[in-house]
Amino acid sequence: MNTTVTAKAHTNIALVKYWGKKDPQLMLPQNGSISLTLDHFYTETSVTFDDQLAHDQIYFNDQLLQPAKAQRISQFLDLIRQRSGQTHFARVTTGNHVPTSAGLASSASGFAALAAAGSRAAGMHLDLTDLSRLARRGSGSATRSIFGGFVEWHAGHDDQSSYAEVLQDPVDWDVQMIAVVLKATKKPISSTDGMARVVATSPYYPAWVQTANHDLDRMRHAIAAKDLHALGMIAETNAMRMHALNLSADPAFNYFTADTLTAIQAVTDLRANGVNCYYTLDAGPNVKIICAGHDTAVIKAALAKHFAPEQLIVAKPGPGITITEA
Amino acid sequence: MNTTVTAKAHTNIALVKYWGKKDPQLMLPQNGSISLTLDHFYTETSVTFDDQLAHDQIYFNDQLLQPAKAQRISQFLDLIRQRSGQTHFARVTTGNHVPTSAGLASSASGFAALAAAGSRAAGMHLDLTDLSRLARRGSGSATRSIFGGFVEWHAGHDDQSSYAEVLQDPVDWDVQMIAVVLKATKKPISSTDGMARVVATSPYYPAWVQTANHDLDRMRHAIAAKDLHALGMIAETNAMRMHALNLSADPAFNYFTADTLTAIQAVTDLRANGVNCYYTLDAGPNVKIICAGHDTAVIKAALAKHFAPEQLIVAKPGPGITITEA
Repeated sequence: MNTTVTAKAHTNIALVKYWGKKDPQLMLPQNGSISLTLDHFYTETSVTFDDQLAHDQIYFNDQLLQPAKAQRISQFLDLIRQRSGQTHFARVTTGNHVPTSAGLASSASGFAALAAAGSRAAGMHLDLTDLSRLARRGSGSATRSIFGGFVEWHAGHDDQSSYAEVLQDPVDWDVQMIAVVLKATKKPISSTDGMARVVATSPYYPAWVQTANHDLDRMRHAIAAKDLHALGMIAETNAMRMHALNLSADPAFNYFTADTLTAIQAVTDLRANGVNCYYTLDAGPNVKIICAGHDTAVIKAALAKHFAPEQLIVAKPGPGITITEA
Repeated sequence: MNTTVTAKAHTNIALVKYWGKKDPQLMLPQNGSISLTLDHFYTETSVTFDDQLAHDQIYFNDQLLQPAKAQRISQFLDLIRQRSGQTHFARVTTGNHVPTSAGLASSASGFAALAAAGSRAAGMHLDLTDLSRLARRGSGSATRSIFGGFVEWHAGHDDQSSYAEVLQDPVDWDVQMIAVVLKATKKPISSTDGMARVVATSPYYPAWVQTANHDLDRMRHAIAAKDLHALGMIAETNAMRMHALNLSADPAFNYFTADTLTAIQAVTDLRANGVNCYYTLDAGPNVKIICAGHDTAVIKAALAKHFAPEQLIVAKPGPGITITEA
């Protein structure tokens, strides 16, 4: 009989961004990053290794993935097979539990859940730190989604030294995010290709690595002090410096849409009116607003001028990974 | 009898941007810049020094300016009085000849015309190089508007060494710009304040100065070789690296509007379809498209999907300053 293992992992949003690989094979980043795991967006993945299978079968939201789309997942399963000695192919059923198809969960929660369910189903019993190292090989940001609350991913210099750990969990103060889910447009470039182009062509890249390391120090202090204003200002500046790298690449690219500019301006205006809120952005048009829970109503009201209620999703700090065997 | 001197100066659009002062008093830039003077946008300014006046009288587009708005012009006239020994106040009538109030002419043509008309009316006979140095004190970009065609402003290290000169005039090949004049919104920050914030807070600024100097070398070669593709690619990358500085400032700011992103995307799409066109942007939402005259129709047709015909203004290379005495 084959054991089925199910893992649930939440997505995370970086407050000090990961943007650029030092080693694409080992997925070592150029700089460390700090994130907040969110409660609202997660991936649930079940894995069963089965000697009756002639190849991996990957079901995503109940649809069997074609081989081309399943390839990245199969390669990750190869890594698990290689380490565990497991020789069979696997049946994987995975689903993203997000209110929309906005891609907010994506690869961070996906590869965290796959690392946890896949390794356990293959007979390995990894601790959370080793799970974090393993998830990293699937997707950089997945390194952080093993843990809940505020998490830091140490850049490291080899497989062993590049892993995430908890900075603060549970998060026992009033901080949250409001995801502004914007109309998806054709992505100008994938995050993998975007960051590779930036590392190769931006004259600003060395200064980015320096400033990100400085931001990590300051962000750790802001989190320890539960200082929303400091946390928000560091996150906002760091995010814009990441997007500045994209503008400075050759050729230039950017992930902004008209709605992105509108949401940024709304946050800036709110803050000018005394509301403690800050924005961050990743490799896509969506804006995430960092704020206190008690300001939710006033922020939603201001954004309602531009966006529909279903585009505004409140997310509280979320938990680390859970694993169950059936 | 008092001499009235009239000068006409055209605006210019930088292909390698000026963004940041080394010396705000002397208006010395951190890096040199290269521009194209345009035929379509100009300022005409007449100056008369008159012993009957109790203060400077500045008429802008036939309206007497209030003292607060006239101050920057009066301070420039003070500089001329100090150098020339002229003791009287002046009557200045100035007008921007641009198809819209989009601010495309603005301070570059304005201070170039004022430097030329004012200094001659005060009895000075400056050569073009000295006029360029004088115009610099009014507005950095005015340094270049003394000359026609392709112009380089040498950054220099003192008043004497910071001046512009012609790289190529007349421009005897098929290069032009199409100005995409977008809805004006409230400017987030003036260019003077914006560049000061960038110099003070952007971790990318030292790399900008290096890359701009490298771009100057490459741009000189592209102009000498009459190579539109090379010229356009250097200009586009340089412009986006200037705007990247703004995103990387603390606090971040940007001059993009939704229409800016639309125009940039239209140029990118056109080029992907084989049309030789490139964009550049200054401290505002407008996009200027660098292209050959023979592609005007196809570019206008593509942009007509998003913008009205009167928003698309074709500008050919323009002449240097002209001065007439009456």
